[in-house]
This record gives sequence, structure tokens and C-alpha cells, in this order.
Amino acid sequence: MEKPVKVGLLGLGVVGTGVLEILADHQEKIEKSIGCPLTVTKALIRPTEDKDEMAKKYNLQLVHELTDIIEDPEIDIVVEVMGRIEPAKTFIAEALKAGKHVVTANKDLLAQHGSELASLAHEQKRNLYYEASVAGGIPILRTIANSLAADDIQEVLGIVNGTTNYMLTKMVTEQLDYDTALKQAQELGFAESDPTNDVDGIDAAYKMVILSKFAFGMTINMDQVKVKGIRGLSGNDVTVADQLGYTVKLIGSTVKQGDSIAAEVGPVLVPSDHPLASIHNEFNAVFVKSSGIGESMYYGPGAGSRPTATSIVADLMTIVNKIQLGTIGHRFSEYTQPTKLTPPEEIVSKYFLSLKMPDETGQFLQLAEIMAKAGAGLEQVVQEKAQVENHARVVVITHKMSETTMSQIQKDIAEKTNFELLSTMKVMGE
Amino acid sequence: MEKPVKVGLLGLGVVGTGVLEILADHQEKIEKSIGCPLTVTKALIRPTEDKDEMAKKYNLQLVHELTDIIEDPEIDIVVEVMGRIEPAKTFIAEALKAGKHVVTANKDLLAQHGSELASLAHEQKRNLYYEASVAGGIPILRTIANSLAADDIQEVLGIVNGTTNYMLTKMVTEQLDYDTALKQAQELGFAESDPTNDVDGIDAAYKMVILSKFAFGMTINMDQVKVKGIRGLSGNDVTVADQLGYTVKLIGSTVKQGDSIAAEVGPVLVPSDHPLASIHNEFNAVFVKSSGIGESMYYGPGAGSRPTATSIVADLMTIVNKIQLGTIGHRFSEYTQPTKLTPPEEIVSKYFLSLKMPDETGQFLQLAEIMAKAGAGLEQVVQEKAQVENHARVVVITHKMSETTMSQIQKDIAEKTNFELLSTMKVMGE
Repeated sequence: MEKPVKVGLLGLGVVGTGVLEILADHQEKIEKSIGCPLTVTKALIRPTEDKDEMAKKYNLQLVHELTDIIEDPEIDIVVEVMGRIEPAKTFIAEALKAGKHVVTANKDLLAQHGSELASLAHEQKRNLYYEASVAGGIPILRTIANSLAADDIQEVLGIVNGTTNYMLTKMVTEQLDYDTALKQAQELGFAESDPTNDVDGIDAAYKMVILSKFAFGMTINMDQVKVKGIRGLSGNDVTVADQLGYTVKLIGSTVKQGDSIAAEVGPVLVPSDHPLASIHNEFNAVFVKSSGIGESMYYGPGAGSRPTATSIVADLMTIVNKIQLGTIGHRFSEYTQPTKLTPPEEIVSKYFLSLKMPDETGQFLQLAEIMAKAGAGLEQVVQEKAQVENHARVVVITHKMSETTMSQIQKDIAEKTNFELLSTMKVMGE
Repeated sequence: MEKPVKVGLLGLGVVGTGVLEILADHQEKIEKSIGCPLTVTKALIRPTEDKDEMAKKYNLQLVHELTDIIEDPEIDIVVEVMGRIEPAKTFIAEALKAGKHVVTANKDLLAQHGSELASLAHEQKRNLYYEASVAGGIPILRTIANSLAADDIQEVLGIVNGTTNYMLTKMVTEQLDYDTALKQAQELGFAESDPTNDVDGIDAAYKMVILSKFAFGMTINMDQVKVKGIRGLSGNDVTVADQLGYTVKLIGSTVKQGDSIAAEVGPVLVPSDHPLASIHNEFNAVFVKSSGIGESMYYGPGAGSRPTATSIVADLMTIVNKIQLGTIGHRFSEYTQPTKLTPPEEIVSKYFLSLKMPDETGQFLQLAEIMAKAGAGLEQVVQEKAQVENHARVVVITHKMSETTMSQIQKDIAEKTNFELLSTMKVMGE
């Protein structure tokens, strides 16, 4: 048995605690696998935090200064589980400069400053791993980097936000409206009191930036991801989608066409027999379409203390293996391609449109004319019985058309008719 | 760019052809990833085979003697895609002894002689990889060996045979009977003309032997897997299971209790909201229950030329990486534990029983007495209207009980009643 590898924790919240738990609970298997003990010896906390009991339980030293960890020659690896951008970014950079390997679960940081940190790690010949940053317990990044390296990925579609998937599941199965579903998610701890990052699709977009890098080798910025959330999504739309054979899901997608990609987050009508349609509640899944394997999907918990911690510990073990073999310093994903984005006129999809129109003769003809002029065919049309104030609700699913065409249709509806376009969503399928 | 790594193929059937295709189609990405070209230079075929066109297309030399490949100092890695036990076993052993690394997709061979070959590879300081042997395109072995090394796995449940999953899907969704479903699978090429290995669960058992080694570190033999297939499964049972909220699937399972495992293959009633219930047609999935992550599932094609070949090429790339880093000779799965099997009296499950009983007063009481005497509770009972010849069909789902108790009940029914026990299946759930 070799001498223990020592780890310093930056942050001691739920995920940090999870790391201590997993290391303790699976100690025997971990030691057997890496051939030495793996121990957290120090944790950085704020002076206001009281973690004495935990320090005693896990036999670790609490410190208030970063230097206490990164200048400790006994510590090989630093785990950052503080979240947010600063001071996490500075701390990770300092740790790398001090010669420590780093593991983090910080998706916000990686989506916004991942390339910079990865380059710093590479310069310093240190490893920077972050499996837990996307879809918590699902080992999707390592799978793409290793097993799918032999494959040519065309699409990555993910349900990568547990909060919104929980809400959408309730909206479909229990016909809850948006506000009630959000309230229930908050009560159960699946949504924060300020749910902005989740319901507006920002959290999912962070993960798509990271996934795009792994799947296509391209570095994109947050403002290159088209983001739409589910805030205020109509229960009516969810129900009519269900009747038409679709399940509404918040889908993060990055699709390759030729040598360019388009990354997007938004509510999508997923055909009910598609594997992503049966991902329920707070679970996550990443669906990959590739030239070699065809269709594969990776399913598991997207968050939670123990699943996230398990991914972090897997990263730690990988680093220990590399230290022992003397093969440190390689990037987590070595795949790089020049970044090229698909222009909107080449991004095609079927669309769902929900409209409110006066219940008068000739109204539908107007819509048909606008669609025909744009060259957009209709696949399914549902007109509900006249509702309040002589307005009818009409739902349309179109054939495939480009984002540019869709914009033109929206513009024409606004300018030339007195319809109200209640909502639009993309529809998955050919 | 370093000099090319050269590969010799043993066999040039559908999977071998797939390897050539994937290497050609994804050449650029593969070279970028491993830093050198990866080329098949020779293929071993039988003298009776005509593969001249393929040899020309892929610029490879056809040979009829193993020595032409294993004594070629230019070849680093041998890929065995002949199938069956012999001569594959001898050829792999000879290749390892000649200093070649080996990749194979041969599940029959690995399930029966995997330990022996892995030890030989270890002695020879060569790598033996076989990701493609379980669930073709799903990178499940590498995921368990790497990402789940930090976790403690309690259960591995797999739909690992595409033929039977296709048949069962048709039996549920189109109410086909067993024979029609089999005929359809054969016509579509999902089942062989002799379907024994598939429908009798043998193929799934091979895969569970390999999965058990990776998940629990234990080496079990085929005769330590309790195997039951779906041959002659009643369409009636499938339909009544559906009505009770279950989908019948052929499940390979290895479950750990304390420090012992029980491995089994058989038709199981899976609750309809379980992720495994929505795995349709020829697709495979492996569901893992573990202490850290909780529930995760890995889904994809279980067979097919390109998916299987993609897994083989991923193995090849891993070996090339290790050759370059000088870290060869480690086992694919390093995890080993003493093998211990759970005794039948400790293996508990809910059961589905389908019985034919005379439609007379007191008959059901007899069944109730037998169950009560065995200490087995009833959870659901469905008695169908009297059928032909004054016999009723009764379907029962029990509470959890041991395999020993179940055997006693079967014995009592045979000895003490004039019921006919039409079928029994395990039922997933608490």
C-alpha cells in the first residue's frame, strides 16, 4: 500500500459533505482500486461557518485561508465545491499555479471560463476534471471523451436540469399549472426560492456549453446558445401536446450540420415514444446520436449531494491513477475543432404554434396564406371550440422550416392579422 | 504525427467489416485523438471465403494462417471477431503470447474463459479489452470500471438481449403470440434460425457473467447463473401483466446482499414506470443501483455491425493511448473480490403465478391455504371468467418471499391440488 493521497476541500456545503461521505462509505473499494488511501485532510470554510462537528467526525482540519491548503506540500489535489464564479475562479487558478490538481463541479464557472482554466492547467501540467458539472451523477463527460472518441457525434440532446424536468413531469401527469408546479418543486427543495437560472434555461445552457466542447471539440460562449426557458409555460399547451402524441421537455441540444454546430435550450415537443419522453421527475438524461453507435442515452440523477460527490470522487481516483502512472497533465477533453456556428437560415425544425384568433369566417385562411407564402407546410391542426369573447384557440404543428422562416411568420402574424401568437416551441422529429 | 499503429483482424464478417468502416469514416477524428493513424493491415479469413473486393477497398492483405498476423512485427494489436469458442480462444492466447494486445467482442468466450485469458494477458503484460462483448454499442464496461469505481454497486439489471426484447415488445404492443413474434424477429434478422441462445436466456447469461465481474469483482461460472428464457411465454401472461401495471422483460440481474451475489436471467414483471419498461424493440439497457449515484441507466443498441465496431475501435484507441504513455498491461477491470453466492433461502422477490384451476367452490381456498402455510402473502389476485372445460385462470402476485418458499409452494400445488401451474415469473419492486 502506497502512502495516502491527500485532498483539500474548498467549501463544505452539501456537496463537500457528500465527498466526505462517499470517501468514508466506499473507503475499502477505493483503496483497493487505486492502491492507496484517499483522504481529505483540510477544508476551507468561512470564519462564520460552524463545521466543528463535521471536522471531528471526518478528522479534518478547518482553515480560513486558501494558502493553508495550496501551500500545504502534503496536499496533491484540491476539490472546489463553493459554486459561483468568484472567488472560485481565483482559487482554482491559484491552486493550479501552486501545482495542485483540481476537481470541480462548478458548471457556471466552467461554461464561462472553462477554456481559460483548462489552458492554465495544461500549462502547469496539472489535471483539471469536472465530471460532476454536467448531469451530476451521470458519467457523461468521461463517456464522450473516452468511449465515444471513436465515434462521430451528430447530436447531443439533454434533459440536464432536474428542477424544470420535475415541474414539467407534474404539469403532464397531474395537469398542474406552471405556478403550482414551481411551488411544489420549491417545497420539495428541487427549486430555489429564486428559480431564475433553472426556469429560464440558464443552468441548462451552462451544461450545453460544456457538452458541446466534449462532443464536438468546439468552444462556444453562453451568448452563442439560444436560450428559452419554461417560465409561464401554458398548461393548455402541455395538455394539447400530450393529446397530439408529444411530451413537453426542456431540451438542451447541440446539433452538428456539416462542420458547424447550433446550440440551444428551450421547451421542445418530444414524441412520446422517444427515450427522452420517459425521463421523469428530477432525473436527467443525455441522448447522443452518432454515426457509429446510432442512438445511445445516459440516465441518472442530475444533482444531489451523493451522486455529485460520487462523480467528484471518480475524478479524484482518475487523477490518483495518473499521478501513479506519471501521465498527468492531459486535458479532460483533448478534442478540439475550429468553432463554427450554423446560421439561422440553415437550422430547421418542425414547430408548434399556439394562436388565439377571432372566431370569424376567413381567419384560418389568413393563417394558411401566411404559412403558404413562407413555404411552411402544416402537419397537424387542432382548433378548439370557441372560447371566451369569441376567440378560438388554434394549435398548429408545421413541417420542417428554418428559424428565419419562423421569424418571418411571427412577424407577418403580428403585422397582418389580429391573431395573438400565444406560444411557439420546436417539435422533435422528421 | 507518430507512425501508424497497425492492427490485424481475425475474421472479416459483419463486425470485422464494421471495424474497417468506422476506422475509415472517422479517420480524421481518430488520428487527432490518438496522434497517429490507426490502420488494419491484415485480415485472417478462411481459404473458402472471397473477400478480395473488401481487401482492395480497404487496402488490406488477406491471410489464411494465424502466424501471418501474430508473427508480423509491424502489428501491435489483434482484433478477434470470429465468434464461438474455438479456434478463437487458441488464437487469442497465441496472439497474447506473441506479444500482441487483443480486442474482442466474443461474449461466449469471455463468459466461459475470461479469467484465464485475462490472467494470460496480465502475465504477458498485454492489454485484453472487450467493451463490445456486453450490450454492443453501450460503453457499460468502461463506465463501471472507471466512473463507477468510486461507487458501491448493489444491483445491475440488464436488458442485454436484443432479440428477446424485440419479441417481447411486439407481444406487448401488438399482442402477438410467442411464435409470431419469433417469426417476425427472424424475418427481420434480429433472431437466428436457431434462436436457442437468445430465447433460452443463454446469451443474456454470458453477459451477466461479464457484468458481474465488473460490477462486483466476482468471477462466476455460467452454471452459477440461474437461467430461464422466454421460450413459449404465454401472450395471456404478457397481457394480464400489462393490465396489472407491469411490462414483461427478459432481465439479467446480479444483486448483492451483504458480501454475496445472486446472478439470474429470466422473464420479469417490470413496473411500467421503471426506466427499463420503456426500452423497446432491439435496444439494450443496463440499469445500475448503487449507494453513491443511486439509479443510473445506460441505453443503446445491443448489437449491429457499426455499434459493435465503434466499441471495438474505442478499445483500440485506449490501447494506443496506453502504448504511447507506456502504461500497458493493466487489466480491463482491476476490481476483485472473493466470489460468494447468496443461498436460495436469502434470495427474495415478489412472484407472479398463473394457474389453471377447476371452477368449483373451495378451489381458491386451497391455494390460499398453501400460500398461508408457506407464509406467503398475496398482493394482487385476478380471476378470469370460467374458461374452457370448467377451468378458471387465476393470476396472483405475491408479497416478497424466498426462492425456497416459492419451491415449496410449487411442490404443494403439484402434490395437493389439481391445479395446473401455468407459469411463474419474478416481479420487480418492493
